[in-house]
Amino acid sequence: MATIVQKFGGTSVGSVERIKRVAARAVKSHRAGNRVVIVVSAMSGETNRLLSMAQEFSAAADHREIDVLVSSGEQVSIGLVALACCELGVVARSFLGHQVRITTDDAHGMARIRDIDADSVFKALDRGEIVVVAGFQGVNEDGQITTLGRGGSDLSAVAMAAALKADVCEIYTDVDGIYTTDPRIVGNARKIERITFQEMLELASLGAKVLQTRSVEFAMKYKVPLHVRSSFDDREGSWVVPEEEGMEGAVVTGVAFDRNTAKLTVLGVPDVPGTVADLLVPLGDAGINVDVIIQNTASEGKTDVTFTVSQTEMERAVALAQGVSDRLGAGGVLADAHVAKVSVVGAGMRSEAGVAVKMFKHLGEANVNIQLISTSEIKISCIVNENFTELAVRVLHDAFRLHEA
Amino acid sequence: MATIVQKFGGTSVGSVERIKRVAARAVKSHRAGNRVVIVVSAMSGETNRLLSMAQEFSAAADHREIDVLVSSGEQVSIGLVALACCELGVVARSFLGHQVRITTDDAHGMARIRDIDADSVFKALDRGEIVVVAGFQGVNEDGQITTLGRGGSDLSAVAMAAALKADVCEIYTDVDGIYTTDPRIVGNARKIERITFQEMLELASLGAKVLQTRSVEFAMKYKVPLHVRSSFDDREGSWVVPEEEGMEGAVVTGVAFDRNTAKLTVLGVPDVPGTVADLLVPLGDAGINVDVIIQNTASEGKTDVTFTVSQTEMERAVALAQGVSDRLGAGGVLADAHVAKVSVVGAGMRSEAGVAVKMFKHLGEANVNIQLISTSEIKISCIVNENFTELAVRVLHDAFRLHEA
Repeated sequence: MATIVQKFGGTSVGSVERIKRVAARAVKSHRAGNRVVIVVSAMSGETNRLLSMAQEFSAAADHREIDVLVSSGEQVSIGLVALACCELGVVARSFLGHQVRITTDDAHGMARIRDIDADSVFKALDRGEIVVVAGFQGVNEDGQITTLGRGGSDLSAVAMAAALKADVCEIYTDVDGIYTTDPRIVGNARKIERITFQEMLELASLGAKVLQTRSVEFAMKYKVPLHVRSSFDDREGSWVVPEEEGMEGAVVTGVAFDRNTAKLTVLGVPDVPGTVADLLVPLGDAGINVDVIIQNTASEGKTDVTFTVSQTEMERAVALAQGVSDRLGAGGVLADAHVAKVSVVGAGMRSEAGVAVKMFKHLGEANVNIQLISTSEIKISCIVNENFTELAVRVLHDAFRLHEA
Repeated sequence: MATIVQKFGGTSVGSVERIKRVAARAVKSHRAGNRVVIVVSAMSGETNRLLSMAQEFSAAADHREIDVLVSSGEQVSIGLVALACCELGVVARSFLGHQVRITTDDAHGMARIRDIDADSVFKALDRGEIVVVAGFQGVNEDGQITTLGRGGSDLSAVAMAAALKADVCEIYTDVDGIYTTDPRIVGNARKIERITFQEMLELASLGAKVLQTRSVEFAMKYKVPLHVRSSFDDREGSWVVPEEEGMEGAVVTGVAFDRNTAKLTVLGVPDVPGTVADLLVPLGDAGINVDVIIQNTASEGKTDVTFTVSQTEMERAVALAQGVSDRLGAGGVLADAHVAKVSVVGAGMRSEAGVAVKMFKHLGEANVNIQLISTSEIKISCIVNENFTELAVRVLHDAFRLHEA
């Protein structure tokens, strides 16, 4: 008898018809002899509707009360899903965050799960009931409602699966899996059958609409196998699994890209210890994430430092960098919003030489100029002019023959 | 420093603008030095919207899950009201039923309050916060959400006031008080300044849209003064208070009427002990409330038994009565849906003779035929043809000079 956690997002519970389909799927799993836990989001559009009501008030947003407000969306979903299961003849019982109980820290709106006491859920499963859990929400130590941030229902599902030692956490969504790259760019992009957690994290940009990054980290930590699949049919989707499960790692698993990238260069920085830190600490303090960083070889006691940030944070980053440049007596800041990051990812890269060379060679042959390079154990990223994004993705997908199984 | 519970119904929190007005009123009370607890309903229309979603499922309605669903409406309201208070610079904290904590029995959809542990509310008030409580909901011993039935927010407010030993429970609504009769029927109907709980209960039909009956019973039991007033202005409304508060009871306080009445007569019932019980027990078992009951003097060992029920339950009542009539060998059932009940109510009636006579005399002079009569300590009711309802109400309002203060 397997324990299965099934997570359904807002689109999958977006109408009465779809809720009936969710219930039918859960009941089918239940009748096949499984212990079934469903985790659901608010009906699509509901969280935004509630947030826009909240915005009618308060410059000084009270996050505690906003959490009370928005968490009502999942409450509606679990009630309806449970009713739909009962209609099909199986007793289903809904659980709010505080009923499970899912305990979090106090960070309203972006709380972190501290502990799950799934005792009452175990009891309901033992009674043969389907359990329907409200995603996205928990309670702090004082019993106040907290929410886990956007995409938090994925995290709720993975955390429930970990607490229940479930055999699988199925993530139902409106796509049927993780692809080798965006199929809108590469027509013969292929659905990946199995991928490791590490690869999934590096491919975040491909999976962002499918799997929230924090939930992948959580699944990796607790070794919860994820199965990302379509809520519209019964076909297998993509499995995200621990690496040790005897996979012969593909050298390259996928090609990711990120257009939300901007490049900053601080010119003529004095080449003395600590200056890069001087430059980056104010950005970190301001909550700006710095991605690729390179520093040129110094000449005449000066060097140029280049780094990338999200395009949406470029303006703030430039202002901060300009301040540091002035203080250090550097030569000013150049900024370029028209860049993109293109990456190849693969766990097999660790033991296979020549992946970087092959990447640079093919990009070069296609006349794609590489502006910056960054590497990790299982990823190589190049910053290129954003006009070349799609070309670079197609060239690399083809070069590593990702359309072939 | 007074403790004030303010209850706002769905219309009063039906829009962002109205919620701001609710907050402004609470903040004003708070700034005047009071300890303020707000109890709110779901925004108008929301409970019906949620129930109509539930009805898309389940012939076999699972009341437990319907309670989870509908109670989300109040959750939205308390979040928004708390945000609106914060916007005005006063810390407000919302409480769901389980957070207060309001414990009820297991009767989902019509639960009865068993206990309120207001400890956390007291603490919030001691910290100088405005407390915003979700009406209509509680939890059973197992921590499952229950709801108190239609109009249950009134009950929540009165119960909170009792638990907090509040000085007053203010019921804000879209009318400005309790009237001597329906002003749509009698143009010079007068707003009642003070009325006893008992009178209010007998006048239920006048107050039905304003005050839920159970909440009046609860207020009477715990001696919680109610102040029914308009949410649109600051004028005094009507006070509902214990009788001992030194009122010189008016002989007649108001004229009530109920068009939702039907009259049944079982003909030729054998005049032996226990037959009326034989007749009425099946109705009670079927949840049908029997109001006025009279039994004619027997002749030739047979008698006629006449009683009234809600018009909406007439068909079921006739079917049941017909079954009993057959079993008893009685002469069949007559039913008349075209009747209404008109009542005069007044605590002073106890010590004043002649009220009934005056009532019958004036109705007779207006050619209103009285079909049945029923009396209680502070009420006299007559069943009349429904076409005479308004006429009877006007005649009685005038006869007892209720337009005069």
